[in-house]
Amino acid sequence: MALDKPMTRNQDKLLYTPGPLTTSATVKAAMLRDLGSRDQEFMSVVRNIREKLLAIGGQANDSLYSVVPMQGSGTFGIEAAISSIVPRDGKLLVIINGAYGKRIAQMAHVYQIEAQILQTPENILPDLQAVESALNSDSGITTVAVVHCETTTGILNPIQQIGEIVNRLHRVYFVDAMSSFGAIPIDLVACHIDYLVSSSNKCIEGVPGFSFALARKEALQATEGYARTLALNLLAQWQELEKTGQFRYTPPTHVMLAFNQALHELEAEGGVAGRAARYRENHDTLLTGMRELGFRFYLPPELQSYIITTFYYPEHPNFNFETFYQMLNDKGFVIYPGKLGDMLCFRLGNIGRLFPEDMTDLLKAIRETLEAMNVTL
Amino acid sequence: MALDKPMTRNQDKLLYTPGPLTTSATVKAAMLRDLGSRDQEFMSVVRNIREKLLAIGGQANDSLYSVVPMQGSGTFGIEAAISSIVPRDGKLLVIINGAYGKRIAQMAHVYQIEAQILQTPENILPDLQAVESALNSDSGITTVAVVHCETTTGILNPIQQIGEIVNRLHRVYFVDAMSSFGAIPIDLVACHIDYLVSSSNKCIEGVPGFSFALARKEALQATEGYARTLALNLLAQWQELEKTGQFRYTPPTHVMLAFNQALHELEAEGGVAGRAARYRENHDTLLTGMRELGFRFYLPPELQSYIITTFYYPEHPNFNFETFYQMLNDKGFVIYPGKLGDMLCFRLGNIGRLFPEDMTDLLKAIRETLEAMNVTL
Repeated sequence: MALDKPMTRNQDKLLYTPGPLTTSATVKAAMLRDLGSRDQEFMSVVRNIREKLLAIGGQANDSLYSVVPMQGSGTFGIEAAISSIVPRDGKLLVIINGAYGKRIAQMAHVYQIEAQILQTPENILPDLQAVESALNSDSGITTVAVVHCETTTGILNPIQQIGEIVNRLHRVYFVDAMSSFGAIPIDLVACHIDYLVSSSNKCIEGVPGFSFALARKEALQATEGYARTLALNLLAQWQELEKTGQFRYTPPTHVMLAFNQALHELEAEGGVAGRAARYRENHDTLLTGMRELGFRFYLPPELQSYIITTFYYPEHPNFNFETFYQMLNDKGFVIYPGKLGDMLCFRLGNIGRLFPEDMTDLLKAIRETLEAMNVTL
Repeated sequence: MALDKPMTRNQDKLLYTPGPLTTSATVKAAMLRDLGSRDQEFMSVVRNIREKLLAIGGQANDSLYSVVPMQGSGTFGIEAAISSIVPRDGKLLVIINGAYGKRIAQMAHVYQIEAQILQTPENILPDLQAVESALNSDSGITTVAVVHCETTTGILNPIQQIGEIVNRLHRVYFVDAMSSFGAIPIDLVACHIDYLVSSSNKCIEGVPGFSFALARKEALQATEGYARTLALNLLAQWQELEKTGQFRYTPPTHVMLAFNQALHELEAEGGVAGRAARYRENHDTLLTGMRELGFRFYLPPELQSYIITTFYYPEHPNFNFETFYQMLNDKGFVIYPGKLGDMLCFRLGNIGRLFPEDMTDLLKAIRETLEAMNVTL
């Protein structure tokens, strides 16, 4: 069910980033209201959001899983989970191949949660054998955390295969699906996920302001006393929403209205399958064009998600990333720097309210910019 | 500099609550854009917000104080401060006469921060002598926390007098000015405030989604190693903003655009003085009308802020708060329940984009509702 490109769009630059993203005019227009946070109408918006997110995770109702929205950015949601679901004497196994895996380890460090790190280079998938060995050899490990799509590079980690190991060895499984949820089908049960976190301003195409956890209720209910903060207490947040339909603390009402509309538009696009089709087409258009321009890709195709892609800087003396960025920006295209230490890379996202024509437009702008910079590839 | 009541307003109910509040159409319309969170234009919005907030605190520049916005609701900002500014072996004196003072104590408890409580009933001001005695008799107390306007009741606490004691006895002073900042003049230096926290959806009349601390730089810079979380780390948040002009983690870009517009509209109204004049007029209109209707006020006039007011339920067998609330709601007026344990009270806020006519409209609706309920006072 293809979506027509809207005829009118505001004059903002298009965002080829990992988020905040370009959103539809109708999503933004949903924010032109002031609802009371404890009012019935807003409570029904919250209920609707929670139900629809469950459905995206493959759950027809809340018998097994429940949704816990959390104020703040995606990182706030990840931190809410990490600080709330690991037992006081628990131990976290963190599977890392990028900056967001490292951030989870950093959270464990801040909360003095014991952690074991299983790290592979940013362009290498996690070692499943090593995961299994770690769990077999250390019965103290209670919880396993992994990032689905590492925005650092765009690599897609095998959350189902990891989930099968974690489940077989009876540990709690946490998945950071920030950049993938809504764009890549995820079946919570099939992946054996206990907790999944994503945010409002990623592939659901809402605006930034909150994150959400999809939590297996039995796991969540067993976490009494684990939380290490007040505001980021996942269990308390869930309990209050279940009891009263309201948030403990002021929710970002306007952002949630936008998100409610974004969920409606996701459905209209054919759900995750429809969105995935558009993102794949965006990505194919982008990569074909970038290859033609002579750019080299950091990841091999088999590891590459259709969300965000890392490109090496052109090896040409005239190339300067800041100039390249600024010239594209001046043309109305916002791209994204790399995040690979001293590796000379930049990133292009193809998610948000972007269409294949927007990819073609970007490619044209990149070609013109390289010409203006006298860079040949 | 009186502000004309806008001719057109959306069809939403008016919010007579402590927030989220009714905001102007232009504040909401500022959200109809998608800016990249690391883009120059957004960074200049953030810079402008930080500068203008300093000015509201009486600071012409950032030589003494600096502003640290924090994603999430007001409570997230309070928790960021409490968990970030008390030394690891520090002790907090919490001055309590309402639910928000209690919440600060609850945060101390969660973080295992030693705390001494100085509590007075909700309709009694803090005992200044007791504050002084507590600080004199316990050299372990490092930090004093108080709420300026307790939304629980609407009581206004003497932050300047407390600040003089705290300053004289060389402790760090934290003020929760959630419901007062922007509406009641606060001079950071005159009140000897080290940290003040408020939020986007209170008297600046923005929409909910972030909070902010005004921090005395010398105090903040001395807090290295104090933070107990990652996302709510106040010092790290400030350092990144100072270094790069960007947030550590995704900011609520749309909410900040709305807030930027709200600051502009605050200036246009004549700054805090102009806004205070409107809120005072709202409050006078409301209290005069409620007195005429026969309602009794929880607080004596000399303790009452012009922000939010607590009223006793009418002592009449036909009065039922849920019915009263719902009937007003159906007429388009959202009021607020009480928060005083078993005390039978409700609250009316008069902040946000509300004008004296809106108070008159509410009073008329209340009169009609009481008549319909057959309640006489």
